[in-house]
Amino acid sequence: MAQGTEARPTPRPVFFVSDRTGITAETLGHSLLSQFEGVDFQPRTIPFVDTVEKARAAAAEIDRAAAASGVRPLVFSTLVDAEIRRTVAASRGVCFDFFDAFIGPLEREFATRSSHTIGRTHGLVDLQAYQARIEAVNYALTHDDGLGTGGYDRADLILTGVSRSGKTPTSLYLAMHFGVRAANYPLTEEDLEQARLPEELAPHRDRIYGLTIDPERLAQIRAERRPGSRYASLEQCRREIRQVERLYRMEGIPAFDTSRSSIEEIATAVIERAGIRRRLF
Amino acid sequence: MAQGTEARPTPRPVFFVSDRTGITAETLGHSLLSQFEGVDFQPRTIPFVDTVEKARAAAAEIDRAAAASGVRPLVFSTLVDAEIRRTVAASRGVCFDFFDAFIGPLEREFATRSSHTIGRTHGLVDLQAYQARIEAVNYALTHDDGLGTGGYDRADLILTGVSRSGKTPTSLYLAMHFGVRAANYPLTEEDLEQARLPEELAPHRDRIYGLTIDPERLAQIRAERRPGSRYASLEQCRREIRQVERLYRMEGIPAFDTSRSSIEEIATAVIERAGIRRRLF
Repeated sequence: MAQGTEARPTPRPVFFVSDRTGITAETLGHSLLSQFEGVDFQPRTIPFVDTVEKARAAAAEIDRAAAASGVRPLVFSTLVDAEIRRTVAASRGVCFDFFDAFIGPLEREFATRSSHTIGRTHGLVDLQAYQARIEAVNYALTHDDGLGTGGYDRADLILTGVSRSGKTPTSLYLAMHFGVRAANYPLTEEDLEQARLPEELAPHRDRIYGLTIDPERLAQIRAERRPGSRYASLEQCRREIRQVERLYRMEGIPAFDTSRSSIEEIATAVIERAGIRRRLF
Repeated sequence: MAQGTEARPTPRPVFFVSDRTGITAETLGHSLLSQFEGVDFQPRTIPFVDTVEKARAAAAEIDRAAAASGVRPLVFSTLVDAEIRRTVAASRGVCFDFFDAFIGPLEREFATRSSHTIGRTHGLVDLQAYQARIEAVNYALTHDDGLGTGGYDRADLILTGVSRSGKTPTSLYLAMHFGVRAANYPLTEEDLEQARLPEELAPHRDRIYGLTIDPERLAQIRAERRPGSRYASLEQCRREIRQVERLYRMEGIPAFDTSRSSIEEIATAVIERAGIRRRLF
């Protein structure tokens, strides 16, 4: 049974530990780890570690991973409470706490002590921000895929592009993360043949942003939905992308390539370019 | 014109600067700042600072904010490139770079140099992860608000709750952030009067998670949609919440209160409780 196992090193355990969701620890930890090539990681997130008891359980889990893998796990944490932090740091992991590193310098800068309380927002979540978020999500849903064009006057922006170029997830991300009202409108083969903006879009040209995508990638994505179809053929995808990019140029519509950027990056680039004031921070 | 201005101190400028979206810098910066009460901040995110030229422009903007406000701006950054980081740090802001603080210790731990390259994922975005995300978003959309109950066998989980308790945004967040397939089903007055799970839900009981909400808050949220209606009345909201919480207890459905947690927190708590393997990291 042992034969061959020495050829494949055990992935290094990586823990993301937080007194809240762990999302910040994950994001920062991943971007740090992405700087080290050829290291194989086994990620595990432990959220809501907001008592010393839970911190002991997390430390025990880290210690078990250390024993099982034979290497010290990496631990990225965002823990506000000093005792909870010490409890996790007492494990066999190599611990990096993002809070610990900055709260001291900030206290010196403000010449005051921080409150060291977990989840300051754990009371009633700010109703105004919540409403802005929900309203934007509802706007995206009721103005998805060419629906509700009569409501475009209320749009902060309108995304357009061919089928499967990433319009829906980008609209939803803009709503969820920034509270921005984004409609999206699909350009059909007929629209592309006519080589001009459909009449639903034309009056809103200054708020239109175009998505484009690598034709090979588009073909792969479409093949998931309709394998072997003309719709998913590379030839068709190449033609549509050629036409849509020409349309963007002719109409002066800023274009964003979704094949080389994540949804987060596209959404950020669009609101930056649009100069839109976001409703959520 | 100057009268009275001394009573209200100028908000302190806070910059989030990143070579990518700035989302990590924002999240961590906000959670650090939330530890300092009574300090008023003016936030500004500068994303995609990936050249020395853009870093100089960011530094100039920070310096202008310093001059205009008379206080040193705080700068939270995630900048991989050392020269870009130095350029921003040469501004008049008080700079905290999350990357800078950890990359050195990590290099020592790995006994290797990091690649110090911006946006390692800036090539073609991993197709498999992208597909998982898109598929989960599509699942959420086609199984939103009681639609597509025939597809519940494919659900990782099913959220339920009364109208406006947060089902749709939570389902979408689960899809977008974790690649988890979440359906959602609204409980109507009739369902609540019968005090048992609707027949569409009953076969899937072990994958059902309930949302609940403070009745006062629910009334406020519903009033945005239909002001003055019976639907939005506090009496109606109280009755529905009382009934739905009783239903959850009777059926052994885990319940999550959306009035005291953000959508991120609810989504994280649900997958943690469900023990679901996420498809995105």
